[in-house]
Amino acid sequence: MVSSSSPDSGTRPPAKRFELLTLGDELLLGLTANGHLTFIGAQLGRRGVILDRNVTITDEAEAIARQFRESWARADVILTTGGLGPTCDDRTREVIAAVLGQKLVFDPEIERAIIDRFNRFGRKMTPNNLKQAYRFERGEVLANANGTAPGLWVEQDGKILCMLPGPPNELQPLFAEQVIPRLAARGLVADREAYVQIRTAGIGESALESKLQPIFDRHGGALGVAFCAHQAQVDCRLSSPDGRLSLAEIDTIALECARLLEEDFLCFGYDSMAKVCADLLRAQEKTLAVAETATGGLLANAFTDICGASKFFAGGVVSYSHDAKMTLLDCPECLLNQHGAVSAECAVAMATGAAEKLGADYALAVTGFAGPCGGTKENPVGTIYLALHAPHGVWSKKLSYPGPRATVKVRAVNAALDWLRRELVRAQRGEAAPGRRISAIQ
Amino acid sequence: MVSSSSPDSGTRPPAKRFELLTLGDELLLGLTANGHLTFIGAQLGRRGVILDRNVTITDEAEAIARQFRESWARADVILTTGGLGPTCDDRTREVIAAVLGQKLVFDPEIERAIIDRFNRFGRKMTPNNLKQAYRFERGEVLANANGTAPGLWVEQDGKILCMLPGPPNELQPLFAEQVIPRLAARGLVADREAYVQIRTAGIGESALESKLQPIFDRHGGALGVAFCAHQAQVDCRLSSPDGRLSLAEIDTIALECARLLEEDFLCFGYDSMAKVCADLLRAQEKTLAVAETATGGLLANAFTDICGASKFFAGGVVSYSHDAKMTLLDCPECLLNQHGAVSAECAVAMATGAAEKLGADYALAVTGFAGPCGGTKENPVGTIYLALHAPHGVWSKKLSYPGPRATVKVRAVNAALDWLRRELVRAQRGEAAPGRRISAIQ
Repeated sequence: MVSSSSPDSGTRPPAKRFELLTLGDELLLGLTANGHLTFIGAQLGRRGVILDRNVTITDEAEAIARQFRESWARADVILTTGGLGPTCDDRTREVIAAVLGQKLVFDPEIERAIIDRFNRFGRKMTPNNLKQAYRFERGEVLANANGTAPGLWVEQDGKILCMLPGPPNELQPLFAEQVIPRLAARGLVADREAYVQIRTAGIGESALESKLQPIFDRHGGALGVAFCAHQAQVDCRLSSPDGRLSLAEIDTIALECARLLEEDFLCFGYDSMAKVCADLLRAQEKTLAVAETATGGLLANAFTDICGASKFFAGGVVSYSHDAKMTLLDCPECLLNQHGAVSAECAVAMATGAAEKLGADYALAVTGFAGPCGGTKENPVGTIYLALHAPHGVWSKKLSYPGPRATVKVRAVNAALDWLRRELVRAQRGEAAPGRRISAIQ
Repeated sequence: MVSSSSPDSGTRPPAKRFELLTLGDELLLGLTANGHLTFIGAQLGRRGVILDRNVTITDEAEAIARQFRESWARADVILTTGGLGPTCDDRTREVIAAVLGQKLVFDPEIERAIIDRFNRFGRKMTPNNLKQAYRFERGEVLANANGTAPGLWVEQDGKILCMLPGPPNELQPLFAEQVIPRLAARGLVADREAYVQIRTAGIGESALESKLQPIFDRHGGALGVAFCAHQAQVDCRLSSPDGRLSLAEIDTIALECARLLEEDFLCFGYDSMAKVCADLLRAQEKTLAVAETATGGLLANAFTDICGASKFFAGGVVSYSHDAKMTLLDCPECLLNQHGAVSAECAVAMATGAAEKLGADYALAVTGFAGPCGGTKENPVGTIYLALHAPHGVWSKKLSYPGPRATVKVRAVNAALDWLRRELVRAQRGEAAPGRRISAIQ
């Protein structure tokens, strides 16, 4: 689905076929996740193109030759990842050159770049690296700022081949900064994002669709709508499949949707919940502390993954024992004895303690049984108590998550993030509800 | 590479071709990572089989039919994931039945299982779920304990088709508990793990290979050796490709390698570094606390991901400000003013403070600049100071990690884990070196 720039374009040429060949035994053996499909698929998807297929095969030369011959016959744009290394096993360039009927030529500029790179790192280049200085005779080089093997680009027989280096930190900038623009310049992908993405949190897909249906109905077939549900978050992509709506019109519809969604609306685009919380805290010049047991550091980590976290994040405590809660969070021993560590009372005491000890405006606390061990009759495995301490009140809530330990942790973190986010949104709108200050000791 | 049970087997039949078809637009658009390839590839790899290829395509019926026809002609075992949902779009069973020349039949037992499942969750079954009660007339059903759509199994034309439900928490137990045993019973995969995996930490692949080469040389071509390098960890798999060595003999060689590797040896199998640390702490009846800034909760999370963490993990502090370090870890203010938060002195004070406040035998501290913001001339972005507090001493070390924020965090966590692990291994052997007790204030 390649969007055209003119909303009134008539017939469209048949969509081009994009194939992705990911090479590597480590992929077939599950030793490495196929992150290239995830990244490249998403990059193309943002520009209105869906891959026709991804084939993962061994990095053995004959198998690559067979597969490439098949893909080259069938597709219009063929992207390959891997197989560009310096070892003598890497015959990928050779076998593909043979299928294309091209020669490989030594390029002294590539050699110079490789030597420069080794010098910069104070290392001596080994001779086998020189095989990475070969390119297709009738082809171009895509400079690799983060590695030795450049990307290779060939336009031939009305098709395009683009070979990309395997390491993700080399491939991703190269693809985003060089390949996407080249494809856009040739009209093979949209020259900008082909849809507007509305990101929501704390609302399920069916409920979201119901809420937005009145807006969708007003635009009928002109508006393309696609949902993608993640854990605790549903994305909605608006587009104009036949080009009837301009991007400005889609933006307007998206704004209308966001207003209608109120606090269910997370952001436009791709920000995480933690990032949205961070932006709200910084805008309001407020700080946050966290206290966690069951999530064990994962909640603090969500915030500290954000650059500049020290501007809003005061710190956190992983209070994994009664002693830790008493020493680090000033939880009263009698409270722990009376209600136990997995209780609303304890969560509230943890949140208040974290806010006070760390001098933070807001605090989140999580306590519970992540499992699979532990749990009681009243609070089985998967029981989570959250508490939110805000300038104007403190609240707690009880949640229940089935599933393995890692799932319980992730879901509890997402619930805490969404709860904080909604409170910050309300505070921003001046609508923060005064809360009954719950005394930790009744 | 399917290992045979007899070490003296002569000629082997040609290896069977396994193909994996992963269906779903969400995979092609990079909305979901292709975890099925990672899981199934690893499961087969453990039993001596490497997938011939993985093809990811859309879940659109005609495309599935075309691809399946091609794979069915070419491979011996075809595994599919996804396309078994209840919506009317899911015509996967129908198109595959057509290629196989089979009918689909309604199976009242499947229907009963689906109704039971809805009842158990107190929900009403919607009529569209009934399409999941259809199976191939000449085929079998693989019960799905965690979802509504069962797996489907067909043996026909000397080939095998196995269709698996899409959600990972449904697919993974089904595959491990039902599909692998069926394949093993038919001699298509090894009836047990086909290799012994030696997991190492803190040693690079070249150095590891050099260390073990003398042992490998003694067995020549009889011993298969494969390395797989991960971040901070290199795995080495020993096998007998031609069956000359029995599993017991491979075990003996592996034990010899482990002894030679000393502290570089992490474990046999698949345990994480945190798990190995946890086992060592529990065996020595010692406890651990952590104090972190740059890693921001990720180090604590590594330990709390382990079931039963409360048995050895006393807790952690994410001390993201000077105040947090002083209040929660008793770091002296003058130390912070004199040396700064990113210093060996601060790391040592944090570790000692954590050990004392949380009453733990061991403590790890991490401070540094995760980036991309921050850094100084002496301590640029990527500078990390670790400290390890043990019963007999406290030490610090300075590390330097280029790369994005997330990479710095992960590498710092791995370095801390490996350092603790080696210290615990030495303590277990009674070799713990007495350390100069570094006074935090000189």
